[in-house]
Amino acid sequence: MTATPAAFPTIALVVRQNTDGIAAPVRSVVEFLQNAGHAVVFEAQTAEHLALSLPQVRVMTAAEIGTHCDAAIVMGGDGTMLGIARQLAPFDVPLIGINQGRLGFMTDIPLDGMLDVLAQILGGRYKADRRTLLEGRVMRDGATIHLGLAVNDVVVARGAGAGMAELRVDVDGHFMYNQRSDGLIISTATGSTAYALSAGGPLLHPSLGGIVMVPIAPHALSNRPIVLSETSEIVVEIVRGRDISVNFDMQTFASLAWQDQIVIRRSPHTITFLHPEDWSYYNTLREKLHWNEHPSHDGKLN
Amino acid sequence: MTATPAAFPTIALVVRQNTDGIAAPVRSVVEFLQNAGHAVVFEAQTAEHLALSLPQVRVMTAAEIGTHCDAAIVMGGDGTMLGIARQLAPFDVPLIGINQGRLGFMTDIPLDGMLDVLAQILGGRYKADRRTLLEGRVMRDGATIHLGLAVNDVVVARGAGAGMAELRVDVDGHFMYNQRSDGLIISTATGSTAYALSAGGPLLHPSLGGIVMVPIAPHALSNRPIVLSETSEIVVEIVRGRDISVNFDMQTFASLAWQDQIVIRRSPHTITFLHPEDWSYYNTLREKLHWNEHPSHDGKLN
Amino acid sequence: MTATPAAFPTIALVVRQNTDGIAAPVRSVVEFLQNAGHAVVFEAQTAEHLALSLPQVRVMTAAEIGTHCDAAIVMGGDGTMLGIARQLAPFDVPLIGINQGRLGFMTDIPLDGMLDVLAQILGGRYKADRRTLLEGRVMRDGATIHLGLAVNDVVVARGAGAGMAELRVDVDGHFMYNQRSDGLIISTATGSTAYALSAGGPLLHPSLGGIVMVPIAPHALSNRPIVLSETSEIVVEIVRGRDISVNFDMQTFASLAWQDQIVIRRSPHTITFLHPEDWSYYNTLREKLHWNEHPSHDGKLN
Amino acid sequence: MTATPAAFPTIALVVRQNTDGIAAPVRSVVEFLQNAGHAVVFEAQTAEHLALSLPQVRVMTAAEIGTHCDAAIVMGGDGTMLGIARQLAPFDVPLIGINQGRLGFMTDIPLDGMLDVLAQILGGRYKADRRTLLEGRVMRDGATIHLGLAVNDVVVARGAGAGMAELRVDVDGHFMYNQRSDGLIISTATGSTAYALSAGGPLLHPSLGGIVMVPIAPHALSNRPIVLSETSEIVVEIVRGRDISVNFDMQTFASLAWQDQIVIRRSPHTITFLHPEDWSYYNTLREKLHWNEHPSHDGKLN
Repeated sequence: MTATPAAFPTIALVVRQNTDGIAAPVRSVVEFLQNAGHAVVFEAQTAEHLALSLPQVRVMTAAEIGTHCDAAIVMGGDGTMLGIARQLAPFDVPLIGINQGRLGFMTDIPLDGMLDVLAQILGGRYKADRRTLLEGRVMRDGATIHLGLAVNDVVVARGAGAGMAELRVDVDGHFMYNQRSDGLIISTATGSTAYALSAGGPLLHPSLGGIVMVPIAPHALSNRPIVLSETSEIVVEIVRGRDISVNFDMQTFASLAWQDQIVIRRSPHTITFLHPEDWSYYNTLREKLHWNEHPSHDGKLN
Repeated sequence: MTATPAAFPTIALVVRQNTDGIAAPVRSVVEFLQNAGHAVVFEAQTAEHLALSLPQVRVMTAAEIGTHCDAAIVMGGDGTMLGIARQLAPFDVPLIGINQGRLGFMTDIPLDGMLDVLAQILGGRYKADRRTLLEGRVMRDGATIHLGLAVNDVVVARGAGAGMAELRVDVDGHFMYNQRSDGLIISTATGSTAYALSAGGPLLHPSLGGIVMVPIAPHALSNRPIVLSETSEIVVEIVRGRDISVNFDMQTFASLAWQDQIVIRRSPHTITFLHPEDWSYYNTLREKLHWNEHPSHDGKLN
Repeated sequence: MTATPAAFPTIALVVRQNTDGIAAPVRSVVEFLQNAGHAVVFEAQTAEHLALSLPQVRVMTAAEIGTHCDAAIVMGGDGTMLGIARQLAPFDVPLIGINQGRLGFMTDIPLDGMLDVLAQILGGRYKADRRTLLEGRVMRDGATIHLGLAVNDVVVARGAGAGMAELRVDVDGHFMYNQRSDGLIISTATGSTAYALSAGGPLLHPSLGGIVMVPIAPHALSNRPIVLSETSEIVVEIVRGRDISVNFDMQTFASLAWQDQIVIRRSPHTITFLHPEDWSYYNTLREKLHWNEHPSHDGKLN
Repeated sequence: MTATPAAFPTIALVVRQNTDGIAAPVRSVVEFLQNAGHAVVFEAQTAEHLALSLPQVRVMTAAEIGTHCDAAIVMGGDGTMLGIARQLAPFDVPLIGINQGRLGFMTDIPLDGMLDVLAQILGGRYKADRRTLLEGRVMRDGATIHLGLAVNDVVVARGAGAGMAELRVDVDGHFMYNQRSDGLIISTATGSTAYALSAGGPLLHPSLGGIVMVPIAPHALSNRPIVLSETSEIVVEIVRGRDISVNFDMQTFASLAWQDQIVIRRSPHTITFLHPEDWSYYNTLREKLHWNEHPSHDGKLN
């Protein structure tokens, strides 16, 4: 977890759209990075919506960033991070997240004081936090019709106006069950704090290496969340239901038909978040889930 | 709970579509009823899909059945019952449910031996089981754009391809919360064994007189199901989200737009199921929910 | 919900033990009440642990308060309120709750500014909030061996070192099920925000009039919480298990033996909380359950 | 997963006590094993309660079985298996489970037809299924006062007559939270189908290598089950509460005092179940959890 100061010669900047008052902080980050000797790159959409003209800042697509940059700083919320993380995953560019509002699970550096934290991290004092991704392949009549990547989750779900879905699930070639429900969430540890949690799933520590399947409003009350090994291959087949689709991180979608199969497995790619040295997964959980809000002396159940 | 034998001079028959081998049981019910001196009526769609030509059986629409019939016998599953119950609710025609497969919560008389049970019930030996319905009024810019009736539930939900919905909920003029979730189920006691149960709601005894609101995959983990008085008026407003709709018993639908309000309250109508005298709500729950499957001497948690 | 100013000539004061710095606020409440023309009474244990010598303050037991006082002001948490509420229930003395720490569900007036709120309430501007209680009768060999009263809940549970309990439950003379679990919570609407909620039960609005049964860690995953009518009589029988006990509001206890029955029904007594006029049940829920902590513009699931 | 036929020269037999009609099946297993050339050993308690006099069957304690036997056949339920598995774990003797009643998760060979299955397994055609165990060390004032081993779970819980427990949890030296609840279940994958499941935990596939922590009726609704890496060290400290104890598989117990710490980590020992070749984890789950009881054509939510 140490690095030479020159570990990150070129750094990309990705900024959430429609963020009031973001121009000034962006300028200060750019200035700070350039003064410290880093080359700075704007991600293409960022450059477009920011419309800032800053000297010596090149503009690159996500794919170009992947091959040319040594780190990416994301200014925004976890949604912004998800979007760019999926694109940079094949290139394993480490990600640093700055949040101007309430801290996220992935964007954990507050805007206030961000330059000090960046100085530390870029100087080599950081915790590297590697996360697994899932890939999902939609098969129809033996052919792949869609391929998606997910940092958080692959979700197969019925439309709001359709009756219950029936999904057949096989894991590693073994029949698990036919499940009737609103749908099924297949989530990474990273996604276990997102939609899967809302649907009743457990938290998974990122070091675990596991995949959790969480049914959404299942007909059978004993259809409980199940945590599988990271090496498992999950096949979900559409047995019954109309208006069913699959989505990846709630950001890319494909419509599904009867007998379509979605084959889900760990992606060969991973992503790496760089956190401040004093970062703790459990601190983030406590903060985000409001654990321990009320000190022990309160002591009443009510 | 007693009745004169002549309490049901005219009886309607409603039969599920696409039910293999249903013709013979239908014939035997018609014959039985006619022999016992009842006039028999086929509901119009039933007549059409059965295509049985039986002597002295008139055909009526649901509305005509409502004004001319003294009871309706439903042969099918709970879905068939839901559909006709909603239509007959304004007329308070009592309902008798026969199920040829696995018994339902509302269709609780097995096909085998049904004639004996019908003889009992039509002879006055039955348990009358009155159920509350909900009505939902969709308001847009001050005007009602849709009005629905629900035996089970009114469900406001996002589409599968849309991000989380944000719904504002007010009860009896008091602000309850803004809820971010996949949607919200507002259910009767009758519906508490259906979709609401799958989404984590409690069972409500039909005698309670209550309405349960069950959030579907809510963002806030403390957004728990809440049971309200039957006299409550609930207003759900669309604050944010795309592709949101409301449905009634998963059988009628309306698309919703930003700032639409759905005003939900107890319907002035009720429905009444006629059960065999030895019927017990708890027996049905035990059977349907597989309670007590394994006798006490099994005794191991595993 | 109006009252003459002289509606509460004599007012009892009940104060939580071991509460640092409570003497000064107690003095100021006494002074305020006496200046407004109310006679002030200390509950006996309060008088003892406070050891304040204040002029013209009489000391009474809970039973004496029940017959002589027109209202009781409770300074403490919900636990203190539960304890006195159970004792005063037979006398229907209205209760006012002041909390010096985090507001409770029942103690909803903050210490800061309490005198203004008391002036309003005692002047007749309040919301009266009537709550149902449960009574539980423990029967052994046909005789009653314990009788308890509960504002929140009656809980039948196994000890930590004992195997699973098996409880037979009958409601209104109908067999419900044999349940294997850690125990069973039978809760009022008031208790639905307490232990029952932790064990997975729904919230019940106080106006509903209902009783909720919540199994604790049940073996059968379909043993879900069930809400019954307030007029139901519930009989819980100990079928199997060691070290099983029943408690009332977690404050009074009785040990149970094989074949003991606990007969639970609505108590003939009720209690009434007096809330400030702008009190709202839903505001309290939002505050206590951290609903809506994060405004809509946050908008990310993570 | 293959073995030479002579892989199991000496086989121990462990039989549940108080099992009506077990003598005859035991005789037939002994006969079968001896005819096939295996030496047969009775576990000491089994020998005592069976009181069978069979030729050439030696009697050994669990520890002796550990050093002298090549496999143990357990006839009984999962409880019997748990008890012997914990004792044999240090010796890694593979375990075969026969159940005369409803099949268990660990005792998965039905009594009927057991000899054919045993012939297969002892002939080398089996699936070996290795399971992790937990060890828990109770520390008081710096000294170890109790050491326990668990196949299923380590449970820290309050007594039925005591108020809520407050437990401080640290994982790998990081503070997780102070949790107020009835207690905390720390479970292996094997235990995830037992008590942890009843308390709301997820299923863990045995191949995952994970430890799940499930709070029992936690005060904070966001205190959700969390799955940790198998290499994690968990420290639970008693912060507050009376009558708190720790148990291992609900079979061994220790009373705890204020500030006691329980240090829980993966045991260096594992156990191995030998299953029939056609065994499938998912088949067992489906059977035990009543998944897919009703075929798709049932198709109604109700």
